Order: sequence, then structure tokens, then C-alpha cells
Amino acid sequence: MSIEISAFAWVPPFAQGYVKDLRPRWALEEAGLDYSVRLLSDDDRHTDSYRAWQPFGQVPAYRDDAVTLFESGAIVLHIADRSEVLAPTSDQDAAQTRAWVLAALNSIEPTVDNVVLPGIFHAGEPWIDGWRPNAEALLDGRLASLEKWFADRDWLTGRFGVADIIMATVLRGLDDEPILARYPRLEAYQDRCLARPAFKRALQAQLDTYAANEPA
Amino acid sequence: MSIEISAFAWVPPFAQGYVKDLRPRWALEEAGLDYSVRLLSDDDRHTDSYRAWQPFGQVPAYRDDAVTLFESGAIVLHIADRSEVLAPTSDQDAAQTRAWVLAALNSIEPTVDNVVLPGIFHAGEPWIDGWRPNAEALLDGRLASLEKWFADRDWLTGRFGVADIIMATVLRGLDDEPILARYPRLEAYQDRCLARPAFKRALQAQLDTYAANEPA
Repeated sequence: MSIEISAFAWVPPFAQGYVKDLRPRWALEEAGLDYSVRLLSDDDRHTDSYRAWQPFGQVPAYRDDAVTLFESGAIVLHIADRSEVLAPTSDQDAAQTRAWVLAALNSIEPTVDNVVLPGIFHAGEPWIDGWRPNAEALLDGRLASLEKWFADRDWLTGRFGVADIIMATVLRGLDDEPILARYPRLEAYQDRCLARPAFKRALQAQLDTYAANEPA
Repeated sequence: MSIEISAFAWVPPFAQGYVKDLRPRWALEEAGLDYSVRLLSDDDRHTDSYRAWQPFGQVPAYRDDAVTLFESGAIVLHIADRSEVLAPTSDQDAAQTRAWVLAALNSIEPTVDNVVLPGIFHAGEPWIDGWRPNAEALLDGRLASLEKWFADRDWLTGRFGVADIIMATVLRGLDDEPILARYPRLEAYQDRCLARPAFKRALQAQLDTYAANEPA
């Protein structure tokens, strides 16, 4: 099977290692599936042909011999269905995997982004100090619920899977914040996820791409 | 097949008609599947037994004879798989349906919430006027991309499906804003979705629940 994903050829240093093509790269490394990368310049993402593949001009998009699709959550669910090591083990496991992919991307990631992104893209603007406590309270509520979920579990579902890939990469959004240290089970979970060799290979592959395409 | 979803017994008027159990209600109405509703008081949502079903204490959660799960996006995808009228028609349709459910919930809904929710929950706080232009710019970027997608399409995928149910309910978050009027194709799409009898039955069912449980 021939698999292609899209990725940016280069991004500024603050984003390196955090762009969302990391998610399918990680899933494909876990699955042991080869893939090629279609690298995009800033202009490429706005062409009609790329928008037909990824309507928002973002990365990643994905294609294989059977389908084309976009959105990192949908892509890793698709990869899981094609992999013995990542495939859900029962109807209930499949349902919970979808639930947790959605929870990571709809119930957690927006609250992470709202804490982190204004400080990156709007540093020094006067509204940030007022905004931040509200955003952090919403994030803390969600992380406290998630901390409880891990009271008697190592992974979100029965075994490591694509829901963990999505959740761990969402939580990495907090790498420069002191917040996760308040949730010891989440911190231990995050460490378990990121210790996986497939994560390290995926991260290195993304960083190697940027190194090879460093602007002059 | 016996299907149960969770919903709040009552919510304040500003939220009535907008709570997310509307999504599975709509999908189940389209599918012609009967369901029962487990109504929750404010206390019920924080019990350990409910958190085992819905880890964040939100609605909706779902169970049938085969599985239990949560997250409205995951629930409607599950319902689609069990319905002749909503089931994806091919592998490609299934992949695009998942992509668009994820896009609505991760690429669009957070930008809608960031425009709308601060004005509801933090009215009058001094940071809102600074926050709002930034939030509206991000939303406009996403809606402009979505408007392009509908240049030659009636529905997100080949026929009406659960991705449309999620997207239309996400866009309803803008009902009290003048924003959607700037996107004529989106407005027409929204109208097509909300004209469906199944939507009207689902909305009425949610409103009837609150009317029956009005606090004294």
C-alpha cells in the first residue's frame, strides 16, 4: 500500500516538533507502515488543488490506494483500521477509541490552545492578562476529569492506541507551561506515551524535514 | 435494539435548543431509531457512575445493546454505522465523513465558541473587547474556507449525513451573531440542514424535556 501525507517544508522554531503531521507520522511508525511526505511551501497550501485535499490549507492531509482524507484525528483512526497493532480489539474498544479521539480534540485541545496560543501570537496585548485566568480555569476543569480517568488505567482504552497518540500530542501543547505538573497521573501517562520508540522516530522525522529545508 | 442517551433535565433559557444531546437526537430521528433519555440533574452529572460513562460530566453519553460511548461526534458516527439512511456509501465516503465530523468539531467549533461564549459567560469583563477581534478573525478564516467547499456541493460529503448534523449544529452557535450572513452559501447550506423534519423533531424533543422539568 502506498501512503502519502502532507507536511510543511519548514516552520519557525517555536512550532518545530509540534505540527500536527506528527500524529499520522507517529501512528504510521507504530503500525510499521512506510509513507512518503508531500512537502508544502507557504504558497502551496493555498492552491485550489491542495484545498481540494485539505479545505483549510492546514496539515496533515493523507492519501493511500483507497481513500483521501484530512484532519489528524480522522487520519489516525483510518490508519488504526489498517494496522494489526493499532486496530481496536472489539466493537466497544472501537467506540471508546473514537470517543477519546474526539474528546482529546474537542473537549481538551481547545482549552489547551486557549491557554497557550494567545501568549504566542498576541504577546503583550492588553487583554491577555484578563483572558488567561478564565482560560486556565476551563483547562484545569478538563484536566482534573482526565486525571480521574487514569486512577486505574495506563491508557485511555484497553491498550495503547491512536487515542493516546492524539491525547499525548494535545498535552504536549503544555510543554512550556507549569500546568501538567499539577496532575501527577497525567504527567506519568504523558511520559509513558512519549517514551515509545515510534514517537521518537516520528518526532525526529519531522525535525529532520525542517533541518533539510532551513531557509537560507 | 435498545438505545439510551443522556441529557440534562433542564438548562437555563439561553442554552435551550443548543445542548449537544440535540446531535444524537437528530441522527436517531434521521435513522428512524427509537431511543430513551436518561435525564440528569446537576448533581447526577458529578457522580462516579455517570463519570464512568461520560468522564467530563457533560452530555450526551450513549449506550445500546453493544457499546457505551460519549462525545457527540463519536456517537453520531456510531449511529450512522447502524443506519441504512445514514451509513457511508463507500470507504471514501466513510473517510470523508469522519474527516468532516472532526473538522466541524476541531477546526470550526472552537473558533465559534471563542467568539460567542465569552460574551455569555463573561459579559462586561474588560478583556472581552480586546479578545473579540482576534477571535472573529480566526472564525472568519475558517468560514471563508468552508464557503469555498460549498461552491459546487449541497452537503459536506456526497449525500446528507452525520457530518452535516454536526456542522449545522456547530453553525447554529452563531444564531445570535450577524456573522453567517457574510457567507451566502453557508447560510443556504444551514437552511437546507435545518429544514429537515428530523431536525425539527429532535429540537422539539429537547425543548419538550425542559418544559416538562421547569423548576418551580
